[in-house]
Amino acid sequence: MFMKDHVIKQARRAKEASRVLALIPVEIRNKALLAMADALEAQQDEILEVNAKEVEAVKEKGKRLNMLDRLILTPKRIKDMADGIRQVVNLDDPTSKIDFEVTRPNGLKIRRVRVPFGVVGIIYESRPNVTADAISLCIKSGNSCILRGGSDVVRTNKKIVDIMKAAAAENGIPSTAIEFVGILDRDVIVVMCRLRKFIDVIIPRGGAGLISRVIEHSTVPVIETGTGICHTYVDKSANQDMALKVCINAKTSRPSVCNAMETLLINKDIAEEFLPKVAKAMIDAGVELRGDEACLKICPEMKAAEEIDWETEYNDLILSVKIVDDVDAAIEHINQYSSAHSDAIITEDKDNAVKFQSVVDSANVYVNASTRFTDGFEYGFGAEIGISTQKLHARGPMGLEALTTMKYLIDGEGQIR
Amino acid sequence: MFMKDHVIKQARRAKEASRVLALIPVEIRNKALLAMADALEAQQDEILEVNAKEVEAVKEKGKRLNMLDRLILTPKRIKDMADGIRQVVNLDDPTSKIDFEVTRPNGLKIRRVRVPFGVVGIIYESRPNVTADAISLCIKSGNSCILRGGSDVVRTNKKIVDIMKAAAAENGIPSTAIEFVGILDRDVIVVMCRLRKFIDVIIPRGGAGLISRVIEHSTVPVIETGTGICHTYVDKSANQDMALKVCINAKTSRPSVCNAMETLLINKDIAEEFLPKVAKAMIDAGVELRGDEACLKICPEMKAAEEIDWETEYNDLILSVKIVDDVDAAIEHINQYSSAHSDAIITEDKDNAVKFQSVVDSANVYVNASTRFTDGFEYGFGAEIGISTQKLHARGPMGLEALTTMKYLIDGEGQIR
Repeated sequence: MFMKDHVIKQARRAKEASRVLALIPVEIRNKALLAMADALEAQQDEILEVNAKEVEAVKEKGKRLNMLDRLILTPKRIKDMADGIRQVVNLDDPTSKIDFEVTRPNGLKIRRVRVPFGVVGIIYESRPNVTADAISLCIKSGNSCILRGGSDVVRTNKKIVDIMKAAAAENGIPSTAIEFVGILDRDVIVVMCRLRKFIDVIIPRGGAGLISRVIEHSTVPVIETGTGICHTYVDKSANQDMALKVCINAKTSRPSVCNAMETLLINKDIAEEFLPKVAKAMIDAGVELRGDEACLKICPEMKAAEEIDWETEYNDLILSVKIVDDVDAAIEHINQYSSAHSDAIITEDKDNAVKFQSVVDSANVYVNASTRFTDGFEYGFGAEIGISTQKLHARGPMGLEALTTMKYLIDGEGQIR
Repeated sequence: MFMKDHVIKQARRAKEASRVLALIPVEIRNKALLAMADALEAQQDEILEVNAKEVEAVKEKGKRLNMLDRLILTPKRIKDMADGIRQVVNLDDPTSKIDFEVTRPNGLKIRRVRVPFGVVGIIYESRPNVTADAISLCIKSGNSCILRGGSDVVRTNKKIVDIMKAAAAENGIPSTAIEFVGILDRDVIVVMCRLRKFIDVIIPRGGAGLISRVIEHSTVPVIETGTGICHTYVDKSANQDMALKVCINAKTSRPSVCNAMETLLINKDIAEEFLPKVAKAMIDAGVELRGDEACLKICPEMKAAEEIDWETEYNDLILSVKIVDDVDAAIEHINQYSSAHSDAIITEDKDNAVKFQSVVDSANVYVNASTRFTDGFEYGFGAEIGISTQKLHARGPMGLEALTTMKYLIDGEGQIR
């Protein structure tokens, strides 16, 4: 009960602050952001000290090394965080834009303006850079934020938040516009997800487990991000050299990220020729292959794929492979198993390309390119809050505008209906 | 269990049909819509017969007359339904528009296109015109729909759906793109709200009870519509003649609709002068007044308002009235109690107008006009799926575009990252 009351109090404070924040000009928000960046660098020793202790404790618990790496801060990483904030300062203000304007025959003037959401709830896992990132994107877009990070580096995150809150307060931004939920009890997530009165949108950033927990419990609207079961289909007409190059890139250039390929689909008419080539290249790159029956006939060295493989985001050097009859069968597989993040076709057949892009029901649909390009920076948006895999509000890489909603302002002279 | 399986089957069929529908050109969708309109008129006798029996049964249950009126169909109302469909035909196709296009330095061509959601779930109460309305808006925007209407006129709704399905099928639209859930068990709503695999968005259309039930249970994203606790604040500087005229209009021109005023806030400095005038006019118009203590001192003939009054959408000739210190107090009251639909200030003070429009956190914020104008047709959108009171995806009156999402199409020549 205490826990619940405490979170409600924080969310209420954030909501109240959001009313003030909505009236603060972007120049002041930018100035405060620059001060936050400077403060993080100036106080890096304090952050590093807290972080080193927490990382030590996690080490003792015996976490995997690649998990551990995400928790560790260094002077270089703190500088990157600060520079990230400075980049956000340089972006256009996403608020106050009028995107529709009309004067009706009765004289009513109607304007539609982009405005901040109010309070953005961000529930994330351990990485401390998300803390600085989320705060800067929210403040830039005129939103209060309430953050709940993972338990491993909770004190590191708290320290980052405290430094940023202090810099905000000194520069005309209410410090309560930034609230950090330090309670480790996982039930706190459920409490946050039901505070419709104070939190306007929840953005979970993390694995599929976190995201489905949030969706299950939330009555606050959710923007889902990041789960990536991405496919590449190599069509009969594909330029096979291109296909090979693109597939290797999509799988191996950074296997831990959401836009990496998890399943390769190959047209049956080229499978005998293409599969051995791609299998060899993948194995040479350290990739474990799991194929369907038809694959195993051609490449018996592959492991057998099970149903669960088609549903898995490996985030690792593992690839499931399936041979399909044609583009329709590829599309059907993708629409059944894809997380609707990014899927690609490699083809020289224009009709198949158009069909694939029309019918595959994913946020980003590629022809002849690696799925690895799905990214706010690669698309030219300058910053990214995440990659939405849902259809409401935002889909694909989300720029700052995704943190705003709209509002109709109607000016009259006493009109009645 | 049977019920659940049946609904799942319907939703799956609708999803499959949506893949086909997404490829059908707008000319064919329009032709099918015209055929649906004609078929409703041609078969009006069958509809009227079913409807008369159901209305008779409802009468026997002793429903209130204004409830009953919403269920009754007449030849004129069927003609209006058909004409409504014909109007939708004349609207621009909201799909296939490219709203962002860029060629990146690496040669990747990125296009963002508007595409149908896929399957739209509409859960509504009794009015049969919603059935034809929802189907036409969904088909026009390339979406399948799965409808669940109220129990009072379930057979009327089913008849309308059957006629429209047949006309669709004869004109190149899969009849399974239109699914009607005829199961009366209210648990079916919960089942629908959790079919994330097959339903892309749920739009509840009805009272606050229905909407909160959907929000509570849904894991499918929801667009909330229609709850209207609308306020008008009469500022110290208001032109009181204008204020009087606007308030009477906002309350009495159509009290049953969502954009009608439910609470009147009056600045304390003009209350002694303005309240008696507006109270008399309201009482003359048959409005029951419920005031706070300060109101009762000036107009002892008013009933005393209780806390629940500020939270109630009367949809009736009842008005709650409160005297407030200033524009800030008015904004605070509104941000606490408004359903974020439509709120107005009557003022001659530009600063107060700007502050009110900036800080009131509602979809439609008026200066010197009646809240009754919040409506797709009044805004010039030509059709309306509902009025969104939420901040994600759509806010305010929703035109056809609100039934679409977007998709990034990326064309390359073998680019890797």
